[in-house]
Amino acid sequence: MHKKVQEFNDYRSKMNEKILASDNKVIKRIFNLDTNAFKEGHLPVKTKELLGLVASAVLRCDDCVQYHLEAAKENGVTTEEMMETMSIANLIGGTIVIPHLRKALEYWEALDENTQ
Amino acid sequence: MHKKVQEFNDYRSKMNEKILASDNKVIKRIFNLDTNAFKEGHLPVKTKELLGLVASAVLRCDDCVQYHLEAAKENGVTTEEMMETMSIANLIGGTIVIPHLRKALEYWEALDENTQ
Amino acid sequence: MHKKVQEFNDYRSKMNEKILASDNKVIKRIFNLDTNAFKEGHLPVKTKELLGLVASAVLRCDDCVQYHLEAAKENGVTTEEMMETMSIANLIGGTIVIPHLRKALEYWEALDENTQ
Amino acid sequence: MHKKVQEFNDYRSKMNEKILASDNKVIKRIFNLDTNAFKEGHLPVKTKELLGLVASAVLRCDDCVQYHLEAAKENGVTTEEMMETMSIANLIGGTIVIPHLRKALEYWEALDENTQ
Amino acid sequence: MHKKVQEFNDYRSKMNEKILASDNKVIKRIFNLDTNAFKEGHLPVKTKELLGLVASAVLRCDDCVQYHLEAAKENGVTTEEMMETMSIANLIGGTIVIPHLRKALEYWEALDENTQ
Amino acid sequence: MHKKVQEFNDYRSKMNEKILASDNKVIKRIFNLDTNAFKEGHLPVKTKELLGLVASAVLRCDDCVQYHLEAAKENGVTTEEMMETMSIANLIGGTIVIPHLRKALEYWEALDENTQ
Repeated sequence: MHKKVQEFNDYRSKMNEKILASDNKVIKRIFNLDTNAFKEGHLPVKTKELLGLVASAVLRCDDCVQYHLEAAKENGVTTEEMMETMSIANLIGGTIVIPHLRKALEYWEALDENTQ
Repeated sequence: MHKKVQEFNDYRSKMNEKILASDNKVIKRIFNLDTNAFKEGHLPVKTKELLGLVASAVLRCDDCVQYHLEAAKENGVTTEEMMETMSIANLIGGTIVIPHLRKALEYWEALDENTQ
Repeated sequence: MHKKVQEFNDYRSKMNEKILASDNKVIKRIFNLDTNAFKEGHLPVKTKELLGLVASAVLRCDDCVQYHLEAAKENGVTTEEMMETMSIANLIGGTIVIPHLRKALEYWEALDENTQ
Repeated sequence: MHKKVQEFNDYRSKMNEKILASDNKVIKRIFNLDTNAFKEGHLPVKTKELLGLVASAVLRCDDCVQYHLEAAKENGVTTEEMMETMSIANLIGGTIVIPHLRKALEYWEALDENTQ
Repeated sequence: MHKKVQEFNDYRSKMNEKILASDNKVIKRIFNLDTNAFKEGHLPVKTKELLGLVASAVLRCDDCVQYHLEAAKENGVTTEEMMETMSIANLIGGTIVIPHLRKALEYWEALDENTQ
Repeated sequence: MHKKVQEFNDYRSKMNEKILASDNKVIKRIFNLDTNAFKEGHLPVKTKELLGLVASAVLRCDDCVQYHLEAAKENGVTTEEMMETMSIANLIGGTIVIPHLRKALEYWEALDENTQ
């Protein structure tokens, strides 16, 4: 696994465990909802992951973008589809989204090396 | 046409005309991009409109939400799909998105009456 | 009841009912969490309502501010405490919060007339 | 004076008075700073008002935009300069700024009628 | 002192000194207000620090969160109270606040080691 | 060239190339607009760069701030003018802008060493 991807996932797992161990019910349920919301529903998982990606991008949350990039790739999203989603984020959210597009593409490439 | 929909579109058209008449090239091109970005590409128009909707919702732009709701409906988005998209917006963007969900559903119903 | 307060609550109730009737599980659970999160816990309800107020104010959500103003008043928050909370919102969130402070104070006064 | 301009200024004045009457020191000082920050300094007042305008626009605060539009006009800003400032806001802040551009241009025209 | 805490405070001190040395009156007064706003008033310091924490969290400012975590701990805030405050931030501000919760908990633990 | 400046520019160039190589028309045009919008127009380049700086600062985009700091320096902006611009950002955008002011001043100093 690419170092960048490994580190991101390790840190996330470690801290999520600690957060859940703190036993705050509201936070636990939010984490739970986060899993459920992106499951197959009226919309397919792939579309939902693109929705998660564009929302994360316009809100400029790099960690959230990376999380949805991983899930997007696992669900068959192509580079062209990812870039098209990010182009909508850049148009709606403005040029302040560009630095996040740079990091997104860098992470996307790390995910590619990951699967090779 | 429902009064709410009519008023929104009339105001938008009137002011857009004035904006474009001001002859600012950057603004003209942004308006132009806005049309192009949501055309069929690697992703279908329907998916793009859902991306536009969720991005507008998390950024809490009521006018943008209404604009994408109209286009979504024209492209066959069902109420269930719209609500699923908005549920992702509410989860990622938090409960501050709820007031915009209220307005979105109200506008969606106005669009329904519109087409009857 | 003051007209302003009445209208706000009527609209909220009407639309919330429609939203919940749409039967989207994620949205239902978010609404449910919203009720639970502000119940007595390690922190008293009054403190939680002030937290809800300041968070709503810096995120500039007038409807959310009004909702927490009502709950704050019901839980014994004084005008001085409310203004102190809003002063922190204005400092942290900047002068763009001022228009929301205007509306907040206006609604606070409507709530006062309400209870007379 | 144009009705739109009159109403905006009347409401602002009335509520600002009430806010200042509440005697919260932090808020009073923020109001005070707001006056001082836009006075002639190393940068001329006109430039500062354009800075206030673009910052208000990307943060999508209509009241703040209207306040700076008034001050901008009083300091000799032309329609072309105002639109150029707003074009930068639309590029950096994205298309979610467009609804605020519509309202800005509408208010700018109200200010024009105001001075005739 | 924990390395993480030391580095954060050293950088903050060094840069704050440079900022204040630049002799900009508006900035100086904002820094000054920042000290005053969190002093005992109608609300106790502890409550104010929780207000500062939740506002910083929903605005997703890691440095601001860390600053208020330190002050919160110094004023006797427990881990349960901190997590309850952050749970409100996550609910109101959405799942985009989660990455900041991870960093907050990490810093909170560094502060713990600090005082041992 | 100062290491900080070099690294920032190298990363930006490398990733921008990759982004443009992906051949997404919407993104390409946004990049293009970004160049055009800051050219001499009704407003001089120097003013436009200050507009770009203040907008980037209130939106809390460090990379965007650094980009406009470079262009500002190249166009003769003094430290006093830069700080005055940032003071308006801090007032309008609130104390959450302070961490970005720290980084901005640090980068500004790196640019100074750069040109010596």
